[in-house]
Amino acid sequence: MSLGTSLERTPRVVALGKPEFVDGEYIKNFQQDFAYEILDASNHQEALKKLPLMLEQHGPIDAFIIRMGRPPYRPFDKIFKLLTPHCKIIASAAAGYDDLAVEWCTEQGIWLCNSVDAVAEATADMAFFLTLAVIRDTYRGERSLREGNWRGPVVPSRDPWGMTLGIIGMGAIGKCLAKRAVAFNMKIKYFNRRRLSTEDEAKYQATYCPTLHELLAQSDVVSINCPLTKETENLISTQEIEIMKEGAFLVNTARGAIVDEAALIEALESGKITRAGLDVFLQEPDLNEYFKTSDKVVIQPHVAGLTDLAFQRGEKEAFENIKALFKTGSPISPVNSPKKQLD
Amino acid sequence: MSLGTSLERTPRVVALGKPEFVDGEYIKNFQQDFAYEILDASNHQEALKKLPLMLEQHGPIDAFIIRMGRPPYRPFDKIFKLLTPHCKIIASAAAGYDDLAVEWCTEQGIWLCNSVDAVAEATADMAFFLTLAVIRDTYRGERSLREGNWRGPVVPSRDPWGMTLGIIGMGAIGKCLAKRAVAFNMKIKYFNRRRLSTEDEAKYQATYCPTLHELLAQSDVVSINCPLTKETENLISTQEIEIMKEGAFLVNTARGAIVDEAALIEALESGKITRAGLDVFLQEPDLNEYFKTSDKVVIQPHVAGLTDLAFQRGEKEAFENIKALFKTGSPISPVNSPKKQLD
Repeated sequence: MSLGTSLERTPRVVALGKPEFVDGEYIKNFQQDFAYEILDASNHQEALKKLPLMLEQHGPIDAFIIRMGRPPYRPFDKIFKLLTPHCKIIASAAAGYDDLAVEWCTEQGIWLCNSVDAVAEATADMAFFLTLAVIRDTYRGERSLREGNWRGPVVPSRDPWGMTLGIIGMGAIGKCLAKRAVAFNMKIKYFNRRRLSTEDEAKYQATYCPTLHELLAQSDVVSINCPLTKETENLISTQEIEIMKEGAFLVNTARGAIVDEAALIEALESGKITRAGLDVFLQEPDLNEYFKTSDKVVIQPHVAGLTDLAFQRGEKEAFENIKALFKTGSPISPVNSPKKQLD
Repeated sequence: MSLGTSLERTPRVVALGKPEFVDGEYIKNFQQDFAYEILDASNHQEALKKLPLMLEQHGPIDAFIIRMGRPPYRPFDKIFKLLTPHCKIIASAAAGYDDLAVEWCTEQGIWLCNSVDAVAEATADMAFFLTLAVIRDTYRGERSLREGNWRGPVVPSRDPWGMTLGIIGMGAIGKCLAKRAVAFNMKIKYFNRRRLSTEDEAKYQATYCPTLHELLAQSDVVSINCPLTKETENLISTQEIEIMKEGAFLVNTARGAIVDEAALIEALESGKITRAGLDVFLQEPDLNEYFKTSDKVVIQPHVAGLTDLAFQRGEKEAFENIKALFKTGSPISPVNSPKKQLD
């Protein structure tokens, strides 16, 4: 039986914890085509305990949903192993998937899906918030006021106007970011595995840089918007920072491990990088002490994609990926291409 | 002799302190048509001491420039009085003019000019920074991290997407703000003394509200972008806040006195207003203690227009206003219509 047609039975879909953001009406509709159940577990230990019981009582699971707010369930390896050999798709409501055992899923013939569009707008909002914050030096402005002083050394600040924003990773988030930055009169350059179509380059007013080197050398602000993979780990380290413009700005809303934090701190201290806006860190939730005390960074606790609309959209995308797989044979936004297809 | 033609002598232009941001080449060109001099005073007292000596030595002044960074020279009344009866124009490099004795200038036949476009982009940048900051709750996020915690109570935040931004004052700054907010998928409403042209409403995707009441009742975020005048003092007080949506956001980058601070604080404490982003305060540089300690505000020390590009543009606009008056008989951006024209 092909996945493109129907299973002999109604596909069984289990969500790891109740998706809290997708609305009830949507779930009702979903249940017309799927046997949908919630695994009532609030963390990793509970999941490991309750999932085998559920499998024993109700039989194999065809699709598994990772809802918004998955950190309590990490790590996923042992949980996922319980789903084989029947599970055909694991659909996550979030964009990041570095903790979701991509290769293992591929080997097991399981589609792994992230949400692509759900967090794009919210993440781009945060990336641009950090861009404005570092350019306008708002952290020092606010701190000076709260400490009972007035302006301190802050005036005048730089302007985004006319600056070049270099976007590393021109996927959904990078595109949303470009759209925002253009409204602030910034020039857009991007580096991406694949070059955009001529139409998209015109739409986002974005100029392609064929090498990372070229992007880094020409950008006043460098924003990281690519996924963390083996290729992007430590993508920005000492050598790459050296190529950057004197006094440039760096914004990272992707993953902490894409930037060599020691190299970044050195560059902030030397003035090579004026300020950095960071929503992500290498050892979350732990932070390098430097970031806690430095006035050369604006920091956020990995919340770029954590908005009410992103949560709604992300959870809906997880369900939609499952619907698409069972209706058309392919999910909408897979991050892998499973080698074998189980039925 | 009409101002539209030429003076019998080269017009004398004096700047109160050296304009630091306009470039030397520009000044050189300006000096081909004007006798340009700098009053070497760094504050109010020095100006009052040195200006009479300058007038005594070099004769009357036709045009007076208030450079960027005028707070040390305040108040201006006594300084301005020394300029009569010859001075025809006082051109300020900043946008605000509530401290510049508009009525007195009008009575004396002196054109008073502000810069209109210079700070518009920078102020809109700051207004939108504050909009993002209050919607995304970034102050608490950053504080939580710096205090050694992770997210705290911050997640998920709200989204600008789909929210209505109500702009009070649709001049140059309001328009720049609308342009930015549209890129973040916000809906724009505005209240203004004059309705924009149909073309401008389309360009800024802005819907006119004929009354302030209507704007306040329909906006998720209210941004104040009008000048401080007798009419706008305390424009937003208890009654107006009552009309606002439950849990709305307020952003003020205009002047502190436009908002009744006591009423705002009450609304923040009751939750009627979720958070406020404030670049301006009633008693600058002093702040109500509440703003220093509350996590319901994001605050900046009146720096919205204080960027390097805004300073360059603003000082240049002051010179351009003077050039226009002596060439065409009217300055470019007067804030008054002097009753009598002195020559």
